[in-house]
Amino acid sequence: MAKWVYSFGAGLNEGRSDMRNLLGGKGANLAEMASIGLPVPPGFTITTDLCTEFYKNGRRYPDELTGQVNDALKRVEEAVGLTFGDSTKPLLVSVRSGARVSMPGMMDTVLNLGLNDATVAGLAASANDDRFAWDSYRRFIQMFGSVVLGVDHHRFEEIIEQAKIEAAVVEDTDLTAADWQNVVEGYKDLVAEETGKPFPQDPREQLWAAVGAVFGSWENPRANTYRRLHDIPADWGTAVNVQAMVFGNMGHDCATGVCFTRDPSTGENIFYGEYLVNAQGEDVVAGIRTPQPLSNLRAKPGEVPLETAMPNAYAELMEVRETLERHYKDMQDIEFTVQRNKLYMLQTRNGKRTAAASLRMAVEMANAGLIDRAEAVRRVNPSSLDQLLHPTLDPKAPRVLLAKGLPASPGAAVGAVVFNADEAESRALKGEAVILVRIETSPEDIHGMHAARGILTTRGGMTSHAAVVARGMGRPCVAGAGGIAVDYNGQTLTTGGKTVRAGETITLDGATGEVFQGSVAMIEPAMSGDFGTLMTWADSFRRMGVRTNAETPLDAETAVKFGAEGIGLCRTEHMFFDPERIGAVRQMIVAGTEAGRRAALERLLPFQREDFRRLFTIMAPLPVTIRLLDPPLHEFLPHADAEIAEVAESLGTDFDTMKRRVEELSEANPMLGHRGCRLGITYPEIYEMQARAIFEGAILVAKETGKAPVPEIMIPLIATRKELEITRAQVEKVAAEVFAEAGRSIEYSVGTMIELPRAAMLAGQIAEVADFFSFGTNDLTQTVFGLSRDDAGKFLPAYIDAGILAKDPFVSIDVEGVGEMVRIAAEKGRKTKNGLKLGICGEHGGDPASIAFCESVGLDYVSCSPYRVPVARLAAAQAALGVGGDRTA
Amino acid sequence: MAKWVYSFGAGLNEGRSDMRNLLGGKGANLAEMASIGLPVPPGFTITTDLCTEFYKNGRRYPDELTGQVNDALKRVEEAVGLTFGDSTKPLLVSVRSGARVSMPGMMDTVLNLGLNDATVAGLAASANDDRFAWDSYRRFIQMFGSVVLGVDHHRFEEIIEQAKIEAAVVEDTDLTAADWQNVVEGYKDLVAEETGKPFPQDPREQLWAAVGAVFGSWENPRANTYRRLHDIPADWGTAVNVQAMVFGNMGHDCATGVCFTRDPSTGENIFYGEYLVNAQGEDVVAGIRTPQPLSNLRAKPGEVPLETAMPNAYAELMEVRETLERHYKDMQDIEFTVQRNKLYMLQTRNGKRTAAASLRMAVEMANAGLIDRAEAVRRVNPSSLDQLLHPTLDPKAPRVLLAKGLPASPGAAVGAVVFNADEAESRALKGEAVILVRIETSPEDIHGMHAARGILTTRGGMTSHAAVVARGMGRPCVAGAGGIAVDYNGQTLTTGGKTVRAGETITLDGATGEVFQGSVAMIEPAMSGDFGTLMTWADSFRRMGVRTNAETPLDAETAVKFGAEGIGLCRTEHMFFDPERIGAVRQMIVAGTEAGRRAALERLLPFQREDFRRLFTIMAPLPVTIRLLDPPLHEFLPHADAEIAEVAESLGTDFDTMKRRVEELSEANPMLGHRGCRLGITYPEIYEMQARAIFEGAILVAKETGKAPVPEIMIPLIATRKELEITRAQVEKVAAEVFAEAGRSIEYSVGTMIELPRAAMLAGQIAEVADFFSFGTNDLTQTVFGLSRDDAGKFLPAYIDAGILAKDPFVSIDVEGVGEMVRIAAEKGRKTKNGLKLGICGEHGGDPASIAFCESVGLDYVSCSPYRVPVARLAAAQAALGVGGDRTA
Repeated sequence: MAKWVYSFGAGLNEGRSDMRNLLGGKGANLAEMASIGLPVPPGFTITTDLCTEFYKNGRRYPDELTGQVNDALKRVEEAVGLTFGDSTKPLLVSVRSGARVSMPGMMDTVLNLGLNDATVAGLAASANDDRFAWDSYRRFIQMFGSVVLGVDHHRFEEIIEQAKIEAAVVEDTDLTAADWQNVVEGYKDLVAEETGKPFPQDPREQLWAAVGAVFGSWENPRANTYRRLHDIPADWGTAVNVQAMVFGNMGHDCATGVCFTRDPSTGENIFYGEYLVNAQGEDVVAGIRTPQPLSNLRAKPGEVPLETAMPNAYAELMEVRETLERHYKDMQDIEFTVQRNKLYMLQTRNGKRTAAASLRMAVEMANAGLIDRAEAVRRVNPSSLDQLLHPTLDPKAPRVLLAKGLPASPGAAVGAVVFNADEAESRALKGEAVILVRIETSPEDIHGMHAARGILTTRGGMTSHAAVVARGMGRPCVAGAGGIAVDYNGQTLTTGGKTVRAGETITLDGATGEVFQGSVAMIEPAMSGDFGTLMTWADSFRRMGVRTNAETPLDAETAVKFGAEGIGLCRTEHMFFDPERIGAVRQMIVAGTEAGRRAALERLLPFQREDFRRLFTIMAPLPVTIRLLDPPLHEFLPHADAEIAEVAESLGTDFDTMKRRVEELSEANPMLGHRGCRLGITYPEIYEMQARAIFEGAILVAKETGKAPVPEIMIPLIATRKELEITRAQVEKVAAEVFAEAGRSIEYSVGTMIELPRAAMLAGQIAEVADFFSFGTNDLTQTVFGLSRDDAGKFLPAYIDAGILAKDPFVSIDVEGVGEMVRIAAEKGRKTKNGLKLGICGEHGGDPASIAFCESVGLDYVSCSPYRVPVARLAAAQAALGVGGDRTA
Repeated sequence: MAKWVYSFGAGLNEGRSDMRNLLGGKGANLAEMASIGLPVPPGFTITTDLCTEFYKNGRRYPDELTGQVNDALKRVEEAVGLTFGDSTKPLLVSVRSGARVSMPGMMDTVLNLGLNDATVAGLAASANDDRFAWDSYRRFIQMFGSVVLGVDHHRFEEIIEQAKIEAAVVEDTDLTAADWQNVVEGYKDLVAEETGKPFPQDPREQLWAAVGAVFGSWENPRANTYRRLHDIPADWGTAVNVQAMVFGNMGHDCATGVCFTRDPSTGENIFYGEYLVNAQGEDVVAGIRTPQPLSNLRAKPGEVPLETAMPNAYAELMEVRETLERHYKDMQDIEFTVQRNKLYMLQTRNGKRTAAASLRMAVEMANAGLIDRAEAVRRVNPSSLDQLLHPTLDPKAPRVLLAKGLPASPGAAVGAVVFNADEAESRALKGEAVILVRIETSPEDIHGMHAARGILTTRGGMTSHAAVVARGMGRPCVAGAGGIAVDYNGQTLTTGGKTVRAGETITLDGATGEVFQGSVAMIEPAMSGDFGTLMTWADSFRRMGVRTNAETPLDAETAVKFGAEGIGLCRTEHMFFDPERIGAVRQMIVAGTEAGRRAALERLLPFQREDFRRLFTIMAPLPVTIRLLDPPLHEFLPHADAEIAEVAESLGTDFDTMKRRVEELSEANPMLGHRGCRLGITYPEIYEMQARAIFEGAILVAKETGKAPVPEIMIPLIATRKELEITRAQVEKVAAEVFAEAGRSIEYSVGTMIELPRAAMLAGQIAEVADFFSFGTNDLTQTVFGLSRDDAGKFLPAYIDAGILAKDPFVSIDVEGVGEMVRIAAEKGRKTKNGLKLGICGEHGGDPASIAFCESVGLDYVSCSPYRVPVARLAAAQAALGVGGDRTA
């Protein structure tokens, strides 16, 4: 018989922390904490397998589940000496979801389950506190009502508001036991009215309904969105944890809190957290009351830290902190409750952190011997380095402060104010920089947060939804800026007498919590010492080289600063758009004859030679891979009639000729058209000019600097061996000419992009005439999937929602299809030419999961945009250390 | 030491007919004829390997060649008792090319080589005929001058014209020995003037120059064009044949002729040919004098057949005919010369023939026991069947006869008159039907002949260039219509007082030689008894099924008549363009909501159901494979503003909304866009409607006829297993609904196109949810090559000229790349599901070479357009019999 239920606490711990796939993160760690002696209220976990089984069988449970739950519940009853549903000493439980990875805000929780009209009296009696008991009962009905029964939670709030008006009080805390009892009556009426049935009084019915709601919530739209953004497969499922309740809201010797064993924002080795006295856990996370700090060191005037309020509990918590870090060897994010001065641990997990914190903690823990260097390298998520590489505000730049909030997620951002998530997304899609401004955020806002450059909220703390999610996403965030009033209807924010309208620009500094009017100048990030240390460690582990995709001197310099070991892709067509040159380019294209093209190319040659001279000067003696002209020629032509007329005039031709030529050059499917080496074959003079510019530029640099660059000339869009043979011969002919003219030669090589399925299949033949392969996985993805990157936006999101594709294949390589092509081509190429140099220069070259794939097929290097170079260095190191690319933690 | 030279004739035959790859067709057959005792003048063949070696070594010969040629030449001298260069008894030789396959008109020939100012006297003496000797000498200078030395042949003609004026005669035959001697002097002056050197007098210098010219001509533009049109690889090379001259122009007891052992036009078992008395071979082929028939049976009033003129030679020729057919077991195309009543054989080869002739001969030879049925099936080129399946003129249609010429190549054609090949090609590319009209054609016209629907010449016989080439190409041709005067400058043809201008329409009947004014109605071809016999034999050998691509009742009926065993591809989108429907289709597309789409689909359902009902009625109980909607939706939308306005009004929406929707739907690369199953996934209601129409239509037919059709529902553009899973589930849901409503069910299956590289790579997974695969090799070719069919025209011809691609990969499957994908997918699919049904439905399904490939990977069926069904049946039989697809003979 399958085991669906695992007990923890009170001496029976059937789980361990390494069983998170089965028990979820929360359940596994509750068992682990209990087993190392920490105070965990007893309970049990229903496994993620059961969730999968549940969905597989049309949302039905296996028969044996009821018995296993009953047995585990009985054990809890015995451990705590209370009985589920007993009217004098009732056992209350919490029911929480717990997936394999933490999904904050995504899943639903029900506390105080087991209360009904009878057991509420028993709770009151055993706690000796009527008000606590009725408050707990109304919390339970409210949570259960909204989460399990689907009653709008605002309807419950309205009843409380009404009760406060009737009692003539302002705060919830001023309501009495009798007031709460009235609220409970109102709640029960509301539920009966909304659902057509009375609120369930049977605790077991409550329990099964809550368990069902947790499993059901695994596939709600919020959860699906979160999983999509975080690349979590839908088939992982969630576990359900049922645990004896402990109460942080039983009086002023009770509290509840969340904290991190180190500062999750900076990584500083200091206890960092918040608590609320006389409260239940959700009060802290919801950000409704402003929490207090834990340690005296962090307290500001007027705050009452836990260290002062409950010194014993605080001391015990400090010991727990030490124990957990020693045990887990990582920073922990913990939840605790103090019930009548006694500490209970309700959760521990590896804490989410900023990139800076992750880096600092990894380096400090390695230096302290808690972990080794390889582990330090493994621990930092390469994608998160992006945060460190983004600009910060220029300290010398003038600025007008609007308001100040909490520094919830580091980094600076400038953008136009928008007040809702949908607008943030739609404007961002148009390429606008936007700042999402909300009173507070909720899971419904995630897509807008993702689309925005930064997030500003006027309510909530450092662990509010906005703060946690923004840090996870690497978005700058200022949270709880209470001085700002937001008017959604009027589409304005007001602060200190100033009003900012939607569409106007503001600047956020997520490191200080400051909000500025207008746009404040930003500066390049300075790499911290920890960053350099970790990169050095990473370089010591990695096998693959890391190059950059760059064609401008600025990009090349940035990339070298970030540690690029050469250029893996210099797109020569990008050099053609310069206003000084586009005239000659257009002249070349519009020319109907070879002579006309040659005349125009003659004008382009000096520019192109100078481009290469500058690039080579920066990069020499590192290799520079130069891709000859690739895109369809008509991309360079004007399209509107007015532009056509202008160009016609500047080229001394008439409008009709120009228009006809543009039409001749237009293509039904330009991606599959007359481009790449097909241009080089039909108009050999183009590649000849480019080859000449490369060799002349290289020889100039060799003469000027004494450091000869190593051009690697790359022919795009090869489908057959013969194409490469012909274009290679062109290049070699020009090389011989230039070397003869200059009286000296330089080293160079000629290779090809592998970016068409045919090239991959025929890679063995192609390798006979190639010095290297560079996988152009952008185009390869387009052709393998038959999917235009420009057009995929119309259905790709639906595909990811429907689970057809786990990820956008243009972001992370499709290992099964595109990856298989790369593997086949790599094998065939190397079979022909042992040690053939292999690289990748698609966008995937900067994606950690794709880099892990590249390691697995033995590529020699990856090439990516300059800002992704550190990401790639770290990811390549992790790949060499065997870390899979699919990290979602 | 390599052997470069092979002797034949006079008792030493080093070659055989099966050595054609080495010796060329001509050389191999000369040796073969000599070895079976036929009268062949002695000579030798320089091999095709030497040609390859020649090009490989920068057009230089290996050292040992001279010695081998000298030895072979010496043997010829001894055999005929003449000496090369001897002034009294000079040996003269012919030098001819001879490639592996016959290339009529493509290669160059030099006759009478060895003549000079000294040997001409010896020839005159030994022939006892001064006129013959000087005529031969001038012929030699003229041929050698134009072919080897590159002097324009018109310049030589001018000298003859001048000589005739001076001698006051009209015909060449009226010129005397002295006249010819003057012509020779004029020729020598011309050569000296044009080349700066005197005409070469050294026979060995002449010989080597002629050999070099033959090898050099292998890569002239005409040869390259011919090879491209006939799929002949450039690396095959040509051989050179050097042979002792015999003379058909030594007097009235001499003749030269070409003939076929059976009628190459009808296949009738009758000797068929032409000869000229007192002439050299090129006089017949050039079509300058009108030849006479061979047999009395075929003689018209006034003609003098060979049978009457030279009865002994004729009798001998009849014996040769019997011997050759018994020996070669095929119809032979032979060249002969009668020198002073003695017959010499100069060439034999398998004769080119029309499809009808090929068919008739194959069937008759099998029935006569000369070959077996398998050989009969092997012998007919499937591509040539096209000719039999094309329309002929309706005998009852009214017509206005313009002129009558020779019935040079069967079939009827209607088109606009054009007078040059380039224009024929350019207008045909625009989709116009054109008739190429020329006084006579030459190899420079081949591209225009290929592009034209039919060819008309006013000069030349049944074996003229125009006639031979047109038959080979399957183009209707009327040759030698002497009643028509062509004025190239005025761009008119005139006959019987009527003038037809360029661009006006005429009709040709290639079966009768008639030319009609305007357009004459045509009718479907009736299949001959031989056709049915051969098809039956073919069906007995083939393994693969043959289906058709059809969506209209007419196409389906035609295909069934041609023997289609089901529909392999019914493109449902073609059903949407009907004027009655396009409104609803556009309404569906322009609808922004599912409800809007459903309303429009509701209107389309009855049409689509009726479409299927009619198709099923024709096809039942054969299988019908229906592809659900595939193309990008915007293909159905109007694009010009006026059209948009019209559609907007008809749909009750405004212009701007319509225009915006059209823009929204437009795509950068529609081939890689929102189409195929991506439509079915994002707008499931579309596929649901189509599935409903299919099932409802099928059940109607089952009820009406008692014969249940077997719909095979095919989902296009699958890239992942999940797409097929989802769309298949949609179809199954609709099936269950319809079956429940109708109270009965029918058999059906659900499969997919394999048309994306990813689908091929993941075919193992996809097969888990597919009942069949159909390879969509059009799209697969596009994605494997990254090559848009719509755009490839700009560079594909250049690619084929440059030898990058041997053939257009959209016409004949690229076996190495696309084919490899098909092979991988077939293997993976069958590994998952043993016996998985596999078919092909791209255009390649009707291409014999591609069909041979399909056999090699074990597909179950091919599907092609209705007119290609017989082609496919025969090609599939040949594939099963092991005939490769690359037949060029």
